[in-house]
Amino acid sequence: MKNMLNLDAILAETLDAATKGYPPSSPPLPISAIGAQRWSLFAGELPLPQAVIRDSALAHNHAWMRDFTTSTGVLLAPHGKTTMAPQIFAQQLAAGAWGITVANVQQLGICVRFGVRRIIMANQLIGHAEVGAVLQLQEAHPGLEFHFLIDSRAQLASIEQLAPAHTSSRKLNALLELGFPGGRTGARTFDEAFDIARAIAASEAVALSGLECYEGLQLTGDSGRDESVVAALMQRVHDLALACDREGMFAGPAIILSAGGSAAFDIVARDLPIQLSKPALTILRSGCYVTHDSGFYNRMLEGMKARSGAVWQARPGLQAALEVWSQVQSCPEPGLAILTMGKRDASFDLEMPIAGKRYRRGSDAAPQPVPASWKIVNMNDQHAYLRFSTEADAAPQVGDLVGCGISHPCTTFDKWRVLFTVDDDYRVTGAIRTFF
Amino acid sequence: MKNMLNLDAILAETLDAATKGYPPSSPPLPISAIGAQRWSLFAGELPLPQAVIRDSALAHNHAWMRDFTTSTGVLLAPHGKTTMAPQIFAQQLAAGAWGITVANVQQLGICVRFGVRRIIMANQLIGHAEVGAVLQLQEAHPGLEFHFLIDSRAQLASIEQLAPAHTSSRKLNALLELGFPGGRTGARTFDEAFDIARAIAASEAVALSGLECYEGLQLTGDSGRDESVVAALMQRVHDLALACDREGMFAGPAIILSAGGSAAFDIVARDLPIQLSKPALTILRSGCYVTHDSGFYNRMLEGMKARSGAVWQARPGLQAALEVWSQVQSCPEPGLAILTMGKRDASFDLEMPIAGKRYRRGSDAAPQPVPASWKIVNMNDQHAYLRFSTEADAAPQVGDLVGCGISHPCTTFDKWRVLFTVDDDYRVTGAIRTFF
Repeated sequence: MKNMLNLDAILAETLDAATKGYPPSSPPLPISAIGAQRWSLFAGELPLPQAVIRDSALAHNHAWMRDFTTSTGVLLAPHGKTTMAPQIFAQQLAAGAWGITVANVQQLGICVRFGVRRIIMANQLIGHAEVGAVLQLQEAHPGLEFHFLIDSRAQLASIEQLAPAHTSSRKLNALLELGFPGGRTGARTFDEAFDIARAIAASEAVALSGLECYEGLQLTGDSGRDESVVAALMQRVHDLALACDREGMFAGPAIILSAGGSAAFDIVARDLPIQLSKPALTILRSGCYVTHDSGFYNRMLEGMKARSGAVWQARPGLQAALEVWSQVQSCPEPGLAILTMGKRDASFDLEMPIAGKRYRRGSDAAPQPVPASWKIVNMNDQHAYLRFSTEADAAPQVGDLVGCGISHPCTTFDKWRVLFTVDDDYRVTGAIRTFF
Repeated sequence: MKNMLNLDAILAETLDAATKGYPPSSPPLPISAIGAQRWSLFAGELPLPQAVIRDSALAHNHAWMRDFTTSTGVLLAPHGKTTMAPQIFAQQLAAGAWGITVANVQQLGICVRFGVRRIIMANQLIGHAEVGAVLQLQEAHPGLEFHFLIDSRAQLASIEQLAPAHTSSRKLNALLELGFPGGRTGARTFDEAFDIARAIAASEAVALSGLECYEGLQLTGDSGRDESVVAALMQRVHDLALACDREGMFAGPAIILSAGGSAAFDIVARDLPIQLSKPALTILRSGCYVTHDSGFYNRMLEGMKARSGAVWQARPGLQAALEVWSQVQSCPEPGLAILTMGKRDASFDLEMPIAGKRYRRGSDAAPQPVPASWKIVNMNDQHAYLRFSTEADAAPQVGDLVGCGISHPCTTFDKWRVLFTVDDDYRVTGAIRTFF
């Protein structure tokens, strides 16, 4: 198997109460033994705040994406930056992913360490330590297939300057990044991109293995507008791919065409594939689908469903697998409750966490949906402000547990060194180790 | 010594390239051996991004705060949540700090583990796992002096319900929190606070060890307004302290009066001390002074200097010790450079990082100040957008290193498991381990 991971080092790692979220009165345990403890969130066996991943939703999302890629014929290299959790990478590969995407050389190193052997760094390779590390990894792992991005002659020249200093038995593989005016990285025009492609094709250190773009930053959630914007970018990738292919610039047995796809994978999967002189691999890099969310990506999915045909509209969508639970520590004035959760614990960059569930020990048998008025309006480092209507709805009480969905999984994962997985009764079934 | 820490476990911990920022091609090393490597940021021996703490600024800030507390007579329990680094706690205690403040029971556990024996949890104690852990820590460490906050009878009742389930040889120590309308936690009125104080004083599980308030959220940077707002809160603390003292509600040999103080420690140190029937300990909990910053807290310090007398205005202020360095990976269009640093690496909650220094290998002997127009305008998970004037100023180039000051140290520290300390030549002198 090309992509079988070895997670032994993670499973053998011992956790204790130095790790946020670990039960403070429990003895140290190896990660492999956590699930057997069956700690219960609602029985008070876990400290709060607590970020949990719901097993059932995670499994659903893996299956959903496997079906999507199978039915559309695209390949998936899910962005590992979202979770930075080799245990989840292993699940993604087992569900059919072609490889894993990373954002930098530290993340690349984590993937290689645990056995991932097909990796796209959806970012420019730059820097002395970084280029050296990539050359070293390629030499140490002959089976490693690694692609990174180039978007300027200056970047290519800096790599060429650093590469000869090392003994290298094979070239580095670069995807040329095509961008758009006002965007992030990526060559802005066909002429500029074609010029860089020509330079890469002529390089003794680097081979051109394909093209890359990232359409995510252009999306607004306006389904019609998003469709035309993304389709136009895919067309520009086609034009460039055909031109490079005509000139024989692409090295290797196949040509990679990759786009982001987290928020518009329907359009990418439909419009990016193209016939070239060699097999073209269409690779999506969606990262957030795996836990999905209760905010931004959920709205984007709605847009996707609106655009798609009846088959996809009838299917259940992705499910929000990631929740952050905290406790009401104070109800200091009418309409305000303060929760034991803050900027250190939950995403706040796109919007505040979304209060969704409430559990009151002693009176609730299971978590209840929160009243409609409950809304997290602000967070400090270690506190959240929950506002609610004092007229219509039931008020929270000191000691209540509140479960929040989040918007943008990446910035919740990076706040936890370990996240527990839970069953539908919120009993812990295992521990997921992150590497940020 | 009451507060000598044992850092052996940290110093013996082995780091390797799985840790963000660790040189990817270096062999694993114990933390104690990092400093001897003398890795150079500018020689390309470190991967980027890299968060560094400048030794000289850190030492300056320790000395500055020691002078401040000595000259004003207040005690300091610096908020550990800022750094969550026992190595820095040890420096703070060596510089005269009375104890350490924490935000939750996980942070309390870290402090106790490494030997801190005077701890204030500037937060409500709530929850089954949390109360159990506190009782267990108190039993296991007879020398531990621990105070937490109470701001409601409901919270007190929940603690009393959980406490009898354990064998406890001594009461828990609680500070009554006084708040203000529109604020965060804390009893809003004198009557409400006095009622809770009475309940605590009558409790068999909890003793009233003092009063607490947090003035930080009221501050705006408008020096005159801030002064009157904070002075009014201190007056309310006095009124409540005198009333509770008259009724003999305070247990223990001394009475603690504690305020936040990060952004207005001058006013707190001047206005909070009071004469009571027992010795009153005035304890500030400032956390951010230790690295200071280049944004919010620096503006607050300017306000403090404006309010203070000639002596403090003439002295040098706190210095920004924390910087995040990254590299220009792309200059894709006029006036825009993209840096290898994002929301995972640097604070963005109060404002974007502040570009301050630039280093170009091959042409610069030392870091240069950046041109006036350079400004970080946005960050994604792993990228920053640097805008600059194409007319007046020198443009960044692909490969340039850019050093950014940050605003709000707490939310940069929590993005790094290890931060390197550096000398004035940006050579690594050691590694600081964080516990988030």
